Amino acid sequence: MASPAPQPQSLQSLLQSLGLPDDTRAALRDSVIPSILQCISAIAQALQTAHHVSLAGTANAFGDDQLNVDVIAEDLVRAALANCPSVRVASSEEDPTERPVHSASTPPPGPSAAERYTVAFDPLDGSSIIAPNWTVGTIIGIWDGESALLQSPATKQIAAVLGVYGPRTTAIVAVRVPGAEPACFEVGLNTTSNNNLSDTCTVIRPRLRLAEETTVTPPRTRYFAPANLRAAAEDARYMALVAHYIRSKYTLRYSGGLVPDVVHALVKGHGVYLSPVTGASKAKLRRLYELCPLALVVECAGGRAVDPADGRDILERSAEDCDERGGLVCGTAGEVEVAMRMLLGLEN
Amino acid sequence: MASPAPQPQSLQSLLQSLGLPDDTRAALRDSVIPSILQCISAIAQALQTAHHVSLAGTANAFGDDQLNVDVIAEDLVRAALANCPSVRVASSEEDPTERPVHSASTPPPGPSAAERYTVAFDPLDGSSIIAPNWTVGTIIGIWDGESALLQSPATKQIAAVLGVYGPRTTAIVAVRVPGAEPACFEVGLNTTSNNNLSDTCTVIRPRLRLAEETTVTPPRTRYFAPANLRAAAEDARYMALVAHYIRSKYTLRYSGGLVPDVVHALVKGHGVYLSPVTGASKAKLRRLYELCPLALVVECAGGRAVDPADGRDILERSAEDCDERGGLVCGTAGEVEVAMRMLLGLEN
Repeated sequence: MASPAPQPQSLQSLLQSLGLPDDTRAALRDSVIPSILQCISAIAQALQTAHHVSLAGTANAFGDDQLNVDVIAEDLVRAALANCPSVRVASSEEDPTERPVHSASTPPPGPSAAERYTVAFDPLDGSSIIAPNWTVGTIIGIWDGESALLQSPATKQIAAVLGVYGPRTTAIVAVRVPGAEPACFEVGLNTTSNNNLSDTCTVIRPRLRLAEETTVTPPRTRYFAPANLRAAAEDARYMALVAHYIRSKYTLRYSGGLVPDVVHALVKGHGVYLSPVTGASKAKLRRLYELCPLALVVECAGGRAVDPADGRDILERSAEDCDERGGLVCGTAGEVEVAMRMLLGLEN
Repeated sequence: MASPAPQPQSLQSLLQSLGLPDDTRAALRDSVIPSILQCISAIAQALQTAHHVSLAGTANAFGDDQLNVDVIAEDLVRAALANCPSVRVASSEEDPTERPVHSASTPPPGPSAAERYTVAFDPLDGSSIIAPNWTVGTIIGIWDGESALLQSPATKQIAAVLGVYGPRTTAIVAVRVPGAEPACFEVGLNTTSNNNLSDTCTVIRPRLRLAEETTVTPPRTRYFAPANLRAAAEDARYMALVAHYIRSKYTLRYSGGLVPDVVHALVKGHGVYLSPVTGASKAKLRRLYELCPLALVVECAGGRAVDPADGRDILERSAEDCDERGGLVCGTAGEVEVAMRMLLGLEN
């Protein structure tokens, strides 16, 4: 059935209608999230014309090859955060040191002094699939206070935004502030009108859920996304888990981009993403810039995100430094449990 | 290293500089291919605002659910072809009957009477991954004469274009006219200026090659894309082939979209795409709208595309009707040979 043509909606009214936090979080609602969404639209516009993607020759702090579009995205996020008086500290995968966003000599004005946030972000995730023009993304975590280090992620990381750059430009927003219901929704962003984003944001899915199958819901297509599959050559348990999915006729969807792979599960309402760690294949996902924001999104959608090394929730463990890394198993809660039982050798 | 900023280039001068056919193919060079590329830009623009993708409720002739964006893309391709006097006949996956493009009472004018083409196309491939905002594509084959049926694909299908809708809009163009060298190149398309595409087309890769490894080239990352993986549950040979890739530490990239999956290999310069057919899992890929154009692109890049049922080249077999389907193994020639030996049981 054709749906009615969507009407653009003011972002602020959108956030309010979705039950986003009350006036004690006015800066988050009216400044931080709108600025980040506007920035995602700007990054999308930069990517649309970036046909000559090439290595910028400035390896980032972790030694990855850095594409010039990474630099553009980093600059756009930094500029967006500089427009938010309540964002006091930021760090990113490209510049992984927490630093003040505003200079000390000019304290930011405005009524938002009660709200102070730290932002930890990966400006452009998926560099290996930029050249073939596959969907890539931005990952942003928003933390209460003036550092994301040595904090309890489960309570201090209060929001996350994923930008998704594909045929369209979309964003997944997750918010979980103490005392309020968690929310996870998807918006579509307009990239054709400059500097007018906040008036042209439409809700695509007001409530993303990683639903469980029950006896009353019919069987659905089940999806798996096995990252770091080469690890299965050395890890018999991972190999057995992959064989289990094939035998059970799960559908494979694996782009190699963390954002599109997790967003696929969120939009389809089912899926499991696996990035186990083995002796020979090291952990690659950064706790602050990738694991924590993704885990918050998945949890706000009713799913689970755990560390494959021990099965503990990703958000149980504080980051001690900006370079900390780990593995990830996330998605539909029941699927995460099955995967972890096999990866930890609790069943065959 | 940063590349110099690309300069927009006239599409006609681009096609000429890439050695595209001489004046005996003037309509192909100056009308058909430019119109198709302009149409791909128009489809990209339609997709960019199509946030509320929904089922249009008009299942297409093959019984697939049809998204409303499919209808938009179909209409845009039909309109583009109507602007090309030399395109006499067309059919598509959405309307799989060969019909005249121009009405009989108004014979098309122009100097191109010597060139008469049939176009067979899939306007929007990858409907299952549109909702999560993954890269999707358009597939277009151009045939000499007034039908694509009962023709020799190897000689009569003389060009193919793949539109790739991702963070950017790109297109792969393959041309192989009798008596000239085959060409396969990638262009980037501007989607921000309306109706001005032909002046704002930039070459990304002037020569796409699925190169062979030799003893003098260093080892590279090797990629595999196993479509229809559920078939491996019933087909021990396919399961063994997948296990071979994992043990040999190939990198998995599988989006489930035929265009992005094949384009990934073309851009990376290596890869193998597998869509075998088993008793329980039927052939899904349409010969006219998917297999033949993809096979021409892969062959023009120096790769191979074969039917997994018998290992014969896809382009050896004529289509007898518009609904014919088959499997596909394509990519780097050496990889196709290894895969076929295992799938046909010629080695373990």
